[in-house]
Amino acid sequence: MRVPPPGSPLVAVLGGGQLGRMLALAGLPLGLRFRFLDPSPEATAGAVGELVVAALDDPAGLAQVAEGARAVTYEWEGVPAEAARRLEGRRPVLPPPIALEVTQDRAHEKELCRVLGLPTAAFRLVDDRQGLDQAAADVGLPAVLKTRRGGYDGKGQAVVPDRDHLERAWSEVEGRPAILEAHVPFTRELSVLAVRSRDGTTASWPLVENHHSGGILRGSIAPAPALSAELQQQGEAIATAILEHLDYVGVLAVELFELEGELLVNELAPRVHNSGHWTIEGAETSQFENHLRAILGWPLGSTAAVAHSAMVNCIGARPAPEQVLAVPNTHFHDYAKVPRPGRKVGHITITASTSEELDSLLARLQGLPGTTEEAVA
Amino acid sequence: MRVPPPGSPLVAVLGGGQLGRMLALAGLPLGLRFRFLDPSPEATAGAVGELVVAALDDPAGLAQVAEGARAVTYEWEGVPAEAARRLEGRRPVLPPPIALEVTQDRAHEKELCRVLGLPTAAFRLVDDRQGLDQAAADVGLPAVLKTRRGGYDGKGQAVVPDRDHLERAWSEVEGRPAILEAHVPFTRELSVLAVRSRDGTTASWPLVENHHSGGILRGSIAPAPALSAELQQQGEAIATAILEHLDYVGVLAVELFELEGELLVNELAPRVHNSGHWTIEGAETSQFENHLRAILGWPLGSTAAVAHSAMVNCIGARPAPEQVLAVPNTHFHDYAKVPRPGRKVGHITITASTSEELDSLLARLQGLPGTTEEAVA
Repeated sequence: MRVPPPGSPLVAVLGGGQLGRMLALAGLPLGLRFRFLDPSPEATAGAVGELVVAALDDPAGLAQVAEGARAVTYEWEGVPAEAARRLEGRRPVLPPPIALEVTQDRAHEKELCRVLGLPTAAFRLVDDRQGLDQAAADVGLPAVLKTRRGGYDGKGQAVVPDRDHLERAWSEVEGRPAILEAHVPFTRELSVLAVRSRDGTTASWPLVENHHSGGILRGSIAPAPALSAELQQQGEAIATAILEHLDYVGVLAVELFELEGELLVNELAPRVHNSGHWTIEGAETSQFENHLRAILGWPLGSTAAVAHSAMVNCIGARPAPEQVLAVPNTHFHDYAKVPRPGRKVGHITITASTSEELDSLLARLQGLPGTTEEAVA
Repeated sequence: MRVPPPGSPLVAVLGGGQLGRMLALAGLPLGLRFRFLDPSPEATAGAVGELVVAALDDPAGLAQVAEGARAVTYEWEGVPAEAARRLEGRRPVLPPPIALEVTQDRAHEKELCRVLGLPTAAFRLVDDRQGLDQAAADVGLPAVLKTRRGGYDGKGQAVVPDRDHLERAWSEVEGRPAILEAHVPFTRELSVLAVRSRDGTTASWPLVENHHSGGILRGSIAPAPALSAELQQQGEAIATAILEHLDYVGVLAVELFELEGELLVNELAPRVHNSGHWTIEGAETSQFENHLRAILGWPLGSTAAVAHSAMVNCIGARPAPEQVLAVPNTHFHDYAKVPRPGRKVGHITITASTSEELDSLLARLQGLPGTTEEAVA
């Protein structure tokens, strides 16, 4: 490794996946250096910074990644909160570890929403099989049973359409502490990405409309079609309440349900988020750059959209760059990961000056490897 | 170094300065890997790829950098043409080495323009002191005496305002083969960046207005203010003629003088160029991405401007990121180089929706370290 010039600040990142990689790609132009902690020697962020190969709770690995860092951040909400806590005394760890503690347990997340008066689906905590029956009676069916901890991309979840499926759902969560959430007959799924700086300034990007399949985000449209000022304001108010309550610094993603013009909080991610990838080309400042500006105490950049954008994930397979780039206005992001079923290996963003143009360009991506429904299975 | 996933194409770059660094920052999202050849172990591109430390004409270094590369390119017009030729039999070397041979000698460059009927300043070749007198008589004074080879950023040049300065100018070029160019009383300096793909498709970005001081580019406005369709067409025609004549692949920069609505060719750079940095944020596709798309045989992206942009170089000193980013719509590019007088260590791009907004934002950068006139000295 070459000797970095004096004054080239180092950012330590817990986790070395594509979010870490994109953080570095946003930060390298700003003169930053990056060091990642990841259990895999093939972590994709290793191409854009130093890579410390160790478990995310390994004390020596944690000490090594944070050594000399201006700030420590994380790119995965599954980073052990204790690991973040351990570093907190030595370096600024941002977002604050409390954000990990809250979001790693769906019960804490729901409690946070209750305290702040933010609407969510009706829910009950479920600790045993009997509790599940009671919860089903309380919130009604259909509902979704989710483990309190450890679920992501649709894992650790079971849909319960009726009482006959309770037993099967219980076996799917393997008896772990869970939460039963009433099914929300939402109009659509949205998310709001927001950022808070060290001085308490907050900013939100336009709300995004998300499309999931098999529990995995397939694509996003930004700004969300037919986004009213009222809905934007509602989404921003939700994000801002959480940011301020947690004395949060960095980017936060809030997944939302829209139901009859009202927003319900679905779940939180205390990090840059897949539904914010469109901001790289579609916003004045990307989520990645603003996350770094926030945690380093630099002024935030504008979160205004500069185009109509669509983001499409490449899952399980990688399209050839020449296929993607043959469609006008596409921006291809290949994470340089070995494709496996259900694995996000890249994304494509299309920018357009009108939503009609966006739709017509988006249609031309149809059928590319990784963008089809089958890729999720 | 981690094992790259299968199918992650490698691009070899001769030279490892900021242009190489920005090529990699554009190519990493496309899933590319980079390997650089540079004599300095501190070459700034080393942060974003493998670095082979050797002279640019070192046979072992050349073999090593090109090993397994999908394509070989260069980021400096001073790369020895023989080095590029040596690799040509083994790998695609693009732009073709002929472009280095032509642009490394001002006499060849002028001859190319003559063959293509492209207007330039009046000039004479100067091989000795007597030849200089004759050249001055032929092209008239004021004029500029330039070494035929090896000059950049104003080095190897001497202004000759009148006959009394001939002796001094001659001593400044140290008796090397030179060229005397008539002074062009230009209205302004412009440049055109153009790209040609492997299949012969060409595209040009909007012409840029450039501001030099002490022979170094200080800043650019893009598109050039009051750019008429005629002027754009004239600039594109010049670039396209050169691209096609050389069977060129990649990005070419042509520096131009505007004189009474006509364009004269000043000089060529067979590479991505400082006056094209604005394209990172200001154009649909950046010069860096399109250079890579061209040399890899991928479809080119749109060269349309998406904003009014101004690019300001940071020379000899680095402003603090928080100072730069406090100005709205700024995009900071810190090359992570140790500042030295006259050395380009970064640039700032401002994007705006109107030229008035651009001017007012630009005024707010005044006085930042590296952006002042003194920094050039």
